[in-house]
Order: sequence, then C-alpha cells, then structure tokens
Amino acid sequence: MDRRAFLKTTTMGGAAGVALAAPAYAQGKRTLTMVTTWGRGLAGVHDAAQRMADNMSMMSDGQLTVDVKAAGELVGAFEVFDAVTSGQADMYNGADYYFVGQHPGYAYFTAVPFGMTAQETLNWYYHAGGMELHDELGQIFGLKAFLGGNTGAQSGGWFRDEITGPEDFRGLKFRMPGLGGQALGKMGASVQNLPGAEVYQALASGAIDGTEWLGPWADEKAGFQEVAKNYYPAGFHEPGAALSNAMNRDVYDSLTPAQQRIFKVASGECHQWSLAQFLTNNALALGRLESAGVTLREFPQEVWDAFGAASREVTEENMGDDLFARIHNSATESMRASSRWITRSEGKYRAERDRVMG
Amino acid sequence: MDRRAFLKTTTMGGAAGVALAAPAYAQGKRTLTMVTTWGRGLAGVHDAAQRMADNMSMMSDGQLTVDVKAAGELVGAFEVFDAVTSGQADMYNGADYYFVGQHPGYAYFTAVPFGMTAQETLNWYYHAGGMELHDELGQIFGLKAFLGGNTGAQSGGWFRDEITGPEDFRGLKFRMPGLGGQALGKMGASVQNLPGAEVYQALASGAIDGTEWLGPWADEKAGFQEVAKNYYPAGFHEPGAALSNAMNRDVYDSLTPAQQRIFKVASGECHQWSLAQFLTNNALALGRLESAGVTLREFPQEVWDAFGAASREVTEENMGDDLFARIHNSATESMRASSRWITRSEGKYRAERDRVMG
Repeated sequence: MDRRAFLKTTTMGGAAGVALAAPAYAQGKRTLTMVTTWGRGLAGVHDAAQRMADNMSMMSDGQLTVDVKAAGELVGAFEVFDAVTSGQADMYNGADYYFVGQHPGYAYFTAVPFGMTAQETLNWYYHAGGMELHDELGQIFGLKAFLGGNTGAQSGGWFRDEITGPEDFRGLKFRMPGLGGQALGKMGASVQNLPGAEVYQALASGAIDGTEWLGPWADEKAGFQEVAKNYYPAGFHEPGAALSNAMNRDVYDSLTPAQQRIFKVASGECHQWSLAQFLTNNALALGRLESAGVTLREFPQEVWDAFGAASREVTEENMGDDLFARIHNSATESMRASSRWITRSEGKYRAERDRVMG
Repeated sequence: MDRRAFLKTTTMGGAAGVALAAPAYAQGKRTLTMVTTWGRGLAGVHDAAQRMADNMSMMSDGQLTVDVKAAGELVGAFEVFDAVTSGQADMYNGADYYFVGQHPGYAYFTAVPFGMTAQETLNWYYHAGGMELHDELGQIFGLKAFLGGNTGAQSGGWFRDEITGPEDFRGLKFRMPGLGGQALGKMGASVQNLPGAEVYQALASGAIDGTEWLGPWADEKAGFQEVAKNYYPAGFHEPGAALSNAMNRDVYDSLTPAQQRIFKVASGECHQWSLAQFLTNNALALGRLESAGVTLREFPQEVWDAFGAASREVTEENMGDDLFARIHNSATESMRASSRWITRSEGKYRAERDRVMG
C-alpha cells in the first residue's frame, strides 16, 4: 500500500487533519501526543520514551511539548501503530517488531533471531542503508521514524530444568513472542505468547516450563528468580532489541526544519543513553541474581545449531516479499562486514584484557 | 586549581568577556567558534566535529551558528584547550587525552591502556558516574564538556617485522603517543611521538620500525600498507577512543536552557553516529588491506601479558593524584561489572552466531 492509497482510505482526523493547517501551527506552541507500547514506569523502556519527550520539549524551547501516554492511557500497547498512522496520536515510542503484521520487514528495526547486535544495528542504520530502508517502510504507512532506544542483547531466559540438548525443547511450554518464538516452534516447543503481567504466575503454577523476558534488570523486577533457577544469559532471539520513535508523517512535515532535526537527533541520543542504561543495570542485577541462588548456564553447541537451523527456516518463509528481502540482505551484508572487524579488534582486545587483568 | 582561582588568573577576553553581557546575547543570534584538534577533512574525526556544529546550528533554529575552525586555522591542534579556557574560542572538539598535561585524569575521557571499550565508556559515562567526573575536571578549568565521538578500538599497529615475543619491543623504534607509548617505553621500546604528517615518511625510510595510527579506514588513507606488511587489528593502548566537545563555561552559562540541552544532546548523538561511522568504514577497509597483501596478525599471549604489566605500572605512577585515583577507580569498577555482563550475553551470542552462521 503506498502512502497516497493509505491517506485515501484512512479517516483524516486528529493530527493528520491538523497538518492541513501546518504553517499556522509551525509558528506557535503545540503539544504532541506520544503513545507507547510500555506500561508507565516500566524500567528502561518507559525511561527512554520519557527522556525522548523531555529532550524534544526542552530543545524546542517550549515550542513543542511532548505528552507521554503509556500503554492503556490513550490506546493499548499494540494499537499505537494504528493510532499514529490514523492521526489519533502524533507519535509512538515502541518496538517495531510488534508490527510485523503490518510488514514483516519491521522485525529488523527491533531484532531478529541470529541478527545484529545493538552496535551492528547502528553501523547498518547510520552508515550502510538501514535508516533509508526504515524510511521506505515508514512511507508505506505514513510514518517518519528513527531508532530511539535499545535493550542490548536479551537473555536466553529462565528454565525450570537445565537444557542438555535440542530434544529438550520438544513439548516444552515456553513463552517467547515474535520470530524467535516461531523458531522455537519449529524445534517442537509449545510456544506461549502470554502478556507480561501473566508470565510470573504461569511459571510459578507450572502452566509454562520457562520464559524469556528481557535481561537481568527487568527479569529480577519480574521475580522469575523465585520460581526458576536456571538462567541463560545468552540467547539467540533478540541480540540487540531497538526501540523506535515514529511520527505521523503529516505531523512531521508540519514541523519546522529545526524541530524535525530535534526529533532526529533526540532519537539518536536516546538510543545511546538507553542502551547504556540497560547494560549498566543488567550488569549489577546479574550479580544479585547469582547471590539469590540462580545458576547461570550456557546452551550446548548442538542447541545453538538447532536455533540456527530453525531461525534460517523462519527467515526463508518471508523472503518472497521484495522489501523484506532487500532489508534482510542489506542488514546481513553490513552485519557480516562489521562483525568481522569488531571480532578482530575489540573482541580480541576484550578477551586478552579480561585474561590479563583478571 | 579551582574555577574561581582560574578566572582570577586568566585574562578575561573574547568569549569569556562576552559572557558578562549574557542576557542580551541569549536573546539574539550568535556565532560560536569551535576549534578542533583535527586537520580539515580528516576522515571521521573532522566529520564528527562538523556534524556537531551543523546539528547545533540547525536545532537552535539559527539562534546559534557554530563555526568550525580546523587545527591551524585559528590555533594549533594542541592549543585548543588553552584557547577555550581563555575565551579565545568558545568550544573545542578534540581528544581529551591530549590534555593529560593539564590533568592526567583527562586520559579516561578518551582512552587508557587496558581500559574501557566504547560501549563500556558509555555505560560508565551515562549511568555510573563518568559524566559527573568529567564535569568535575571541567570545573577546574572553566569548561563544560560532553563526549561527542568515538573511533572504536584502535589497531595494534603496523610492524615491519612480525612480533614473536615481548623481547621484540626492546629497542624497537615505534610511534605511539600517550600512556600507551609510556607503557611501550617500559618494555624497552624507543618510543617516537611524531606528528601525523611525518609518520609515513619515517616508516618508509626506516627511521621507525613501526607505528600505530587509528584503524583500517584511516590507516589505509595514510598508505602504511605500502611500507609495512604486518598489521595487528587488536591493540592494548586505545580500546575505544572518545572525542569530546568542551565549551568555555561562561559561554555555556550564557546559553539559554534550550541551547544548553541542544549542546548536550547533540554531543551524545554525535558520539553514536561517529562510532558507527568508524566501525563501518574500518570493516570495509580491513578487507581492502588484505587484498593489498597485508598480513593480519595477533600478538602472542606473552606480549599481551607484558602490555598489561607495563600499563599497570603507568597507571600506578598517577595514582597519587586524588582526582585521578577517583576517576580510575570509578571507571574500573564500572568496566568490570559491565564487561562481565557483555561477555556472558552479547559476547557469547556473537561467538555462537558467527560459528553457526559461518
């Protein structure tokens, strides 16, 4: 669906209608409504949304006031995409892979199984075509978006029993959303897609055998260490989950060039700040989880091999879509190049430093 | 020296004098002069300075115009610190470790041997006290600074002959500035601190036996592959060299809150953009260097051990300074925590991904 068709078939209300009077608005003070896919106060992700809003408000010297509506306050978490494309809200802060139903290519602007780490995503996004492809997707739906946060590599998750081989996933009742969940399904798991609020109880009651969540910081807050003792810090499914700020394109077009630049630069800064927040807090929480009696484990190589085969299968199922294929190929090419350099320079350095310095 | 003492003993001229009329300036358009430690057009580092200037100008809607003066255009590269503290220029973009003569703690805001990678630096800077310590240093000299760029991990360098053990450094004529060079000196190297423009000729003529420079992208432009064939992608001396934007503190105090926030956020965004630029271009250049006949090598473990011992010695020599010791201890504690998490999550993931996906 191209943008013209989208505008024809969409109710012109709210912010989209406002755009018709853009010149007048551009000279006055205005409030932008930001809806998010996060509950108010949710560690890390809500923080990034709030920082983005505050920075846009402050840098515009009061010309823009960004009003954050957490999930459920204006629309539900998964309704933010439609709310912004229709003009009901002006922008959203969220994880774009929630919108793979709108287009499977959106997965690459959060994370895909066996895909890019946070830094590899940035390399691709800023200097190897990623931002342009994000914009191509956005034009289909009338959005202007920039990456604006990142959780870093997400943990492999919590398991009641240790995983000793790929066969342990057969029949395992495991909570994992998205393409990663699809991959586990191909390995025989009974994949559950429970809302966050229900996961702890499901694990405690034995309704599920395990769950992935996010990382030590958020996982500890959720309390999973009380009901499962095997924790896998490394996982295959979200090696660096980015968050996006997406604005209704007519609203974006009605901003002044200075305000448009503020939106772009604030998003970039917020991505960096957010990633550092997650990594710092994950590091501290990891130690606390161990003190609480959690055993840190790693999946055996044969399990990683099975994750890989299943992930490839999931990717192949989408390659018939031209834009998906172009996004996949662009991201993969960039990842392979930058990964090799990072491994040989920083990777080697870190290994030797940690060995030498103890 | 505290800030009050500094102001008393410094000629109040240029921008520092201007600050006395701050309210008037704050309401009108003004031009800020940014001096840099880089030659005009120098790949990556000048790019980051120019992006910073452009973003500040654009986001302030023309209220600020940042005018970039490359090294030598207003003052020399190493004179930017004094130019900004004295008010001759309004801000500088540069590598703060050039100013270890002013205070040895500045090394930590670029890079130190066996220190933090770029991501570890960010974790510390934003969420574990780094920014506050940078500010404490700045207050001594009348500066307000934020990190604003990063080269990523720098290469171990170019060697005419392969390095087989620590004894190969005895008498080796090698170009390496800063604390890394001091460490090599302790290993018996004859350390040279040549200006960039003279390095190629020195290596070609045999006046030096090797040099570190920056990374594949910049090294290739310098042409070292024509005169040395042993290249070590991993090095110990600059595991993630940050760049800073530092503003005269009276100039900063005279900005509006919106402009102050623009300075901070633009710096953060520029750090992320710059790091991704270096990593992307280093990755591509690494392949080209190999095609040009360069052999990629790794230092043996005993050499890394010797690097470690020498680096520790250099650090110890500065620990008598209270602020240096606090910066070192704060950075080291943060690095150890975040490094452990990164290794167990993203590090393990990358190793398995690269093994499984080939």
